[in-house]
Amino acid sequence: MYDTLLRHPFMSDEGRAATQAQDLVAAMCTVEVALATEQERLGILPGGVAAEIERVLAEHVFDMDAMAHGTVLGGNAAIPFVKQAKAALPDELKAHFHRGATSQDILDTALMLLLKPRLEACLALMKRSRKAGCALMRRHAGTPMVGRTLMQQALPITFGVKVAQWAENLAQAERRLRDVTETGLYLQFGGAVGVHSGLDAQGLEVMDRVAERLGLASPLLPWHTNRQPILALSGAVDAVAVGVEKVALDVSLLTQSEVAEVSEPAVPGAGGSSSMPHKRNPVICARLRAAARQIHGQAVTLSHAGAQPLERGLGEWHAEWAPMLDAVLLMEGALVSLAELWEGLEVHAETMRRNLTLMGGAIMAEPAARLLGDILGADEAQRIAREAAETSRLERREYAEVLLAHPAVAGRVEAQRLRRCVDPGLYIGSSQEQVQRALAVLESM
Amino acid sequence: MYDTLLRHPFMSDEGRAATQAQDLVAAMCTVEVALATEQERLGILPGGVAAEIERVLAEHVFDMDAMAHGTVLGGNAAIPFVKQAKAALPDELKAHFHRGATSQDILDTALMLLLKPRLEACLALMKRSRKAGCALMRRHAGTPMVGRTLMQQALPITFGVKVAQWAENLAQAERRLRDVTETGLYLQFGGAVGVHSGLDAQGLEVMDRVAERLGLASPLLPWHTNRQPILALSGAVDAVAVGVEKVALDVSLLTQSEVAEVSEPAVPGAGGSSSMPHKRNPVICARLRAAARQIHGQAVTLSHAGAQPLERGLGEWHAEWAPMLDAVLLMEGALVSLAELWEGLEVHAETMRRNLTLMGGAIMAEPAARLLGDILGADEAQRIAREAAETSRLERREYAEVLLAHPAVAGRVEAQRLRRCVDPGLYIGSSQEQVQRALAVLESM
Amino acid sequence: MYDTLLRHPFMSDEGRAATQAQDLVAAMCTVEVALATEQERLGILPGGVAAEIERVLAEHVFDMDAMAHGTVLGGNAAIPFVKQAKAALPDELKAHFHRGATSQDILDTALMLLLKPRLEACLALMKRSRKAGCALMRRHAGTPMVGRTLMQQALPITFGVKVAQWAENLAQAERRLRDVTETGLYLQFGGAVGVHSGLDAQGLEVMDRVAERLGLASPLLPWHTNRQPILALSGAVDAVAVGVEKVALDVSLLTQSEVAEVSEPAVPGAGGSSSMPHKRNPVICARLRAAARQIHGQAVTLSHAGAQPLERGLGEWHAEWAPMLDAVLLMEGALVSLAELWEGLEVHAETMRRNLTLMGGAIMAEPAARLLGDILGADEAQRIAREAAETSRLERREYAEVLLAHPAVAGRVEAQRLRRCVDPGLYIGSSQEQVQRALAVLESM
Amino acid sequence: MYDTLLRHPFMSDEGRAATQAQDLVAAMCTVEVALATEQERLGILPGGVAAEIERVLAEHVFDMDAMAHGTVLGGNAAIPFVKQAKAALPDELKAHFHRGATSQDILDTALMLLLKPRLEACLALMKRSRKAGCALMRRHAGTPMVGRTLMQQALPITFGVKVAQWAENLAQAERRLRDVTETGLYLQFGGAVGVHSGLDAQGLEVMDRVAERLGLASPLLPWHTNRQPILALSGAVDAVAVGVEKVALDVSLLTQSEVAEVSEPAVPGAGGSSSMPHKRNPVICARLRAAARQIHGQAVTLSHAGAQPLERGLGEWHAEWAPMLDAVLLMEGALVSLAELWEGLEVHAETMRRNLTLMGGAIMAEPAARLLGDILGADEAQRIAREAAETSRLERREYAEVLLAHPAVAGRVEAQRLRRCVDPGLYIGSSQEQVQRALAVLESM
Repeated sequence: MYDTLLRHPFMSDEGRAATQAQDLVAAMCTVEVALATEQERLGILPGGVAAEIERVLAEHVFDMDAMAHGTVLGGNAAIPFVKQAKAALPDELKAHFHRGATSQDILDTALMLLLKPRLEACLALMKRSRKAGCALMRRHAGTPMVGRTLMQQALPITFGVKVAQWAENLAQAERRLRDVTETGLYLQFGGAVGVHSGLDAQGLEVMDRVAERLGLASPLLPWHTNRQPILALSGAVDAVAVGVEKVALDVSLLTQSEVAEVSEPAVPGAGGSSSMPHKRNPVICARLRAAARQIHGQAVTLSHAGAQPLERGLGEWHAEWAPMLDAVLLMEGALVSLAELWEGLEVHAETMRRNLTLMGGAIMAEPAARLLGDILGADEAQRIAREAAETSRLERREYAEVLLAHPAVAGRVEAQRLRRCVDPGLYIGSSQEQVQRALAVLESM
Repeated sequence: MYDTLLRHPFMSDEGRAATQAQDLVAAMCTVEVALATEQERLGILPGGVAAEIERVLAEHVFDMDAMAHGTVLGGNAAIPFVKQAKAALPDELKAHFHRGATSQDILDTALMLLLKPRLEACLALMKRSRKAGCALMRRHAGTPMVGRTLMQQALPITFGVKVAQWAENLAQAERRLRDVTETGLYLQFGGAVGVHSGLDAQGLEVMDRVAERLGLASPLLPWHTNRQPILALSGAVDAVAVGVEKVALDVSLLTQSEVAEVSEPAVPGAGGSSSMPHKRNPVICARLRAAARQIHGQAVTLSHAGAQPLERGLGEWHAEWAPMLDAVLLMEGALVSLAELWEGLEVHAETMRRNLTLMGGAIMAEPAARLLGDILGADEAQRIAREAAETSRLERREYAEVLLAHPAVAGRVEAQRLRRCVDPGLYIGSSQEQVQRALAVLESM
Repeated sequence: MYDTLLRHPFMSDEGRAATQAQDLVAAMCTVEVALATEQERLGILPGGVAAEIERVLAEHVFDMDAMAHGTVLGGNAAIPFVKQAKAALPDELKAHFHRGATSQDILDTALMLLLKPRLEACLALMKRSRKAGCALMRRHAGTPMVGRTLMQQALPITFGVKVAQWAENLAQAERRLRDVTETGLYLQFGGAVGVHSGLDAQGLEVMDRVAERLGLASPLLPWHTNRQPILALSGAVDAVAVGVEKVALDVSLLTQSEVAEVSEPAVPGAGGSSSMPHKRNPVICARLRAAARQIHGQAVTLSHAGAQPLERGLGEWHAEWAPMLDAVLLMEGALVSLAELWEGLEVHAETMRRNLTLMGGAIMAEPAARLLGDILGADEAQRIAREAAETSRLERREYAEVLLAHPAVAGRVEAQRLRRCVDPGLYIGSSQEQVQRALAVLESM
Repeated sequence: MYDTLLRHPFMSDEGRAATQAQDLVAAMCTVEVALATEQERLGILPGGVAAEIERVLAEHVFDMDAMAHGTVLGGNAAIPFVKQAKAALPDELKAHFHRGATSQDILDTALMLLLKPRLEACLALMKRSRKAGCALMRRHAGTPMVGRTLMQQALPITFGVKVAQWAENLAQAERRLRDVTETGLYLQFGGAVGVHSGLDAQGLEVMDRVAERLGLASPLLPWHTNRQPILALSGAVDAVAVGVEKVALDVSLLTQSEVAEVSEPAVPGAGGSSSMPHKRNPVICARLRAAARQIHGQAVTLSHAGAQPLERGLGEWHAEWAPMLDAVLLMEGALVSLAELWEGLEVHAETMRRNLTLMGGAIMAEPAARLLGDILGADEAQRIAREAAETSRLERREYAEVLLAHPAVAGRVEAQRLRRCVDPGLYIGSSQEQVQRALAVLESM
């Protein structure tokens, strides 16, 4: 379908390759075999059954078209999967297959198995980006640039501290994603109504053992209609999306022709325009922002599908599948792009310095007002600093000189002190200390 | 990918078949050829150029893998498309191809061309459902059932009027969808920054003519960052989703084991459970509700991407593609299911009648209170009607008899009149007139 | 509560003043009186009853605290309202009051009565803004500025055409809002389960007459759980929000210190910073964007509450109230600000012109490539135009001169023609015609 | 405004009382005084200044109308607050007030101070509900009821295990809320552009000390445009909303007239209908579901406002305020209702048992099929179990008897064993063990 051209460009190749329909079927096989294996160990199934089931399934070629059709009829993919698998098994094994399980047990667990390596890949990408971010922070700890509030030039910061902001933002999301990946991907096993009908007390033991075998967390209780684990996952993915989106928003603004303080990495063939040969479009940012927005939309579906009726969702559960997978794969795609962006970001320190003087030094009105406050009182100092800023902007004269020429100021303050006071490169506050503080944490995560 | 098993089951086969990546490429070819044709007619391009471009493109086999890769690099599918198409053209045609156009012109228009037959198919499905709904309304205009408010039995209605509610709900959405389909699918043509750079005043003429050639509406102005047309489409699709969701919600509630007033059509293989042989799951409702929820999520993305910066979106536009297509295809899938649901719905009129008496007639407390009000005053009548309802429920006695035995009532009201007054089958208000009123409109739409 | 400082600043004073709890109670009285009046005319109630009810209610002082408390207990405000009103009526009127009505009839209709003047006020504000926009379009039809795609300088447009884009975007939303206001604000009247229990066929007549009396549209059927009217309203409000948000996004970008092509109107006391005396913050844009985002969120709640069960919502209806009112009042607040923004917008045509040359004329690479294409072929021309753009930017030389000095170009093109071709002020495409085309429509709406 | 009747009914009285505009102003005073105190200790301000500021502010009566108006002009409430506060201070203190701070420092921190006691109140309410839930679990550990999947009767569970599901769902949300409350409510302090301009390295020390003084967490870096803390809070609140919504959804379904397995607590005056005296509406559920839906909408706004530009949001930050406060207060309101619901829930164990036999025992087809599988093979056993279920339902005969009479079964299985096998009260799987497992965790949280 149109996915190739309209959806996949925002995903990663590796992620897509690992989440084919066949991979989902393989994951469902893995779940069933693990279930049979542990049931066999507990004496619920006779010896040798699990290995035999594993052997048959490994060799069986599933009819994927029939499975797609059966999904429509049955309501979920595990129903035709179980049907096909049972049909492939010799009669004596049929009753031992899928024992005590319901389709949601198989599908929820298989989805967790599919997601786990993707989330681990995402964490690796976040680590890679974090490393690249820390390198940028170190390199630009002392690179002054203008800070902008409400998109207006405000006061100086450094590029290092801006990257520290990006990195710390993402680090908070990374912790959430790591928590979910390490302790929040649960096995699902409860049987038809979540109480292990037919297995009685042994049901919980089966649940715990199969979880351990599959490397998933074992839930306190089956979670057929307790979707907190999905919400936690979705929230973490959305947090990563916001972290990425913040970077892309800032880079978009900084790459504007009139600002030009950074450029996306130059990649042959990337960022060209079909009609304007001179353009270098911030295509990575466009992709990141598009991915983040789509992830937000999917998080909405997942949040609104969180409350599910009685012992099984009636559409709510079904509404989770594509949004959840899409969100994770879009996140993975975005994280690949983010790593490339940070590793190749071109930083134009000279332009940053030039932009600092764009407003005739008026961004230094705050420290000027503070300095003058001792002589003139706070209100008067602010008024004069503000007027001088306007004069400086309109007459394109140096801010310090305008101030020194002001009748209320002239001769009442040491010129050298005032000039130093309004030099933006000397007025970066705790920027360097913030970078050090951030590095200490971000490099040891 | 996982789409086959997790997303496509909620879409229609026909819709998916018509929206392959190849179809999008074909639509982009159509746009370019129409553009060249009208430019040729206006003398902007030399004679014969359009036919030649059409011939070359028709024969050219596009490299779809390269196009997917180029979409990542370029930021949208039209960029590699134009590149491949130009490479395929003889040198003398290259400068005539894509003349005055930008990639968004091609892609936006191609998407409209792709969507138009899908929306028309959806309208046909809605008409088919409307017809089925009207038939149900006629058949059950006089079939009494209990109306439920806050999911509590309240007072009688008819099944006909319930279907009228469903059908009128969907009819309002249908009108919105029809408006958008007939007058709201716009050509996009503005060139690089939306002002027909290089074509000057002729740009608008080209725009109007190409729109007419393609059977699309011509916009007042190019709409690269005026996404009201997308919002209108998205809103209409979401309205249809809500209409479908309402039906599915009601049918889910009415098919509950304890209510059992309707059943989904019996389809061999559908609605079975992998663990419970006795179950007939309302699988159509599950699919409808899942589709509607996913559409809502996509509408959120489209609404939040509606404001796009300056002359071209930076991620906002890109975030529209998959959600917009997904939403329409999910709608089409839902509408196929809705038609099947209504055409095959099993209505259990006898159970409806039985459920009317479930509470010992207590649902008739309102008319009882009204009748008794004349004798006892409104407040006293309400109190007695309420108490008798409770008694009737607890003691499982007929409501009329409990009332007639009440000391404040006994002998003060004609027994026959009271019994008639609390007969639910006689207390259906304007149900029949509402059905007639609805039919008059819905059958002539 | 915190509303005064955190929510109301985004609303309009007029809107807030007209939507006090007392106004809602007054609207409920209006509904009940209209209902009694028409029932009296139809002979359902005895003569004189309606006037008497009106008189009592007009004099009655409702206990607003009790009403708030009763709303919690009863689930909606109409329940304690009816209770208080009945208690205030003489005994002989009690049974005639609220006859055949349910609480949702009263509350839904009262909300429509409350909303109608607000929507009309919004339409008046949109008209006022449209007029201001048209004036800006006329004034700046020939003011060239650079068009920006993906936030990069692209090709020239005019400021007039940019305003035309804004105005046409809003005009589309205005049409939706007007449609809803004029034909989509419905009376609600269906009684307990929507079928006029107790009134029978007369119910529909009552419905139509009360609607006419109240100046509301009469629905085909009662719409207790058919929330398409709410969705249509919410969609129109969200469309306005997007239209406003687009303007605010563009103005935010254009007021950036480095771009400085427009300024928000200077209002004494507005836009100051608590810490930076030199700053003029685009506070109107901040308010507009904040309002739009909150409206989007409310639209999400309304869309997800659209499907309501059986004959009455169980929380879905209740979830509509605050979001619907908030959305409309935020829209009104935003429209007041928009009118002020457009009426007082400072346009810096000189800066626009200066920014056109910021990149050394490189934005003219497209026309340059087109011109050179005749001599060099399209591909070669694009390559050279692109290289020269880079040279021009790096060496800060005029683009035309770089091109003329290029060995492949030198002497092969007339210098004057090339210079004219790359003069941005001469390359504005159909900008002026687009403004004319837009004015013709927008001034006659 | 309309809030009293349309929004506040979903909030708690205690929550509203504590979050008046005056409380926000008081919190801003607290922040400024803490800032001055620590700056004084660090020698940034002269001795005695903080106490003097505190004294003046404590006595000052702020002009709330002017503050509301100033919020519109300035863009946020801290701007007029600082202005009024400064005006109230003697001249010699003015320069020491708000030193190194920006309006967002004050407002973000004040909002955290306002939220903290509310979140603590919510955690106390969740603990109270958890206790009530555990009591229900204990009491009904052995109360059998039917489990329902896709709203169809499926297999037996116990009411205890259903409550365990509810409680564990909420417990997961409680942990998230507790984490955020205890470690995720951060001081904001960064100055104009987040780098402590003017305070240099001391800025971080001030930040850490003021945080400790105020009992808030100290962030790694200022978080003006790193909104991960808001996202984490919003996610936790939304998780609580989903937990509450799940309970309300289930209770709504179980209180349906036809199911009637539980009732909301009987509260005088609650749940009445304005038109139907017999009704007992599940008003608590309606309120809970309405609150949850509104919270979801607010979470959408917060998620979409997560990425904020450069050093200060331009509308994104402003869009957080009302949604964040509303969400928390709606959560508090919902949690009050939840505690009341669980503490007073009426459980109708007898009806639960009756409903278990509603389908003639057909829900026991699964165990029947398992038992018969040994004799007949799995496929044949499933077929017969399914047919017998249908026969039992249609002919209203006991399922066991239908099975025993089946030619393929008759005489091939011990009647007593079959009857026991299909006794729903004996087929509750691990229900009791699940309750024990849940209690062990939930009672020791």
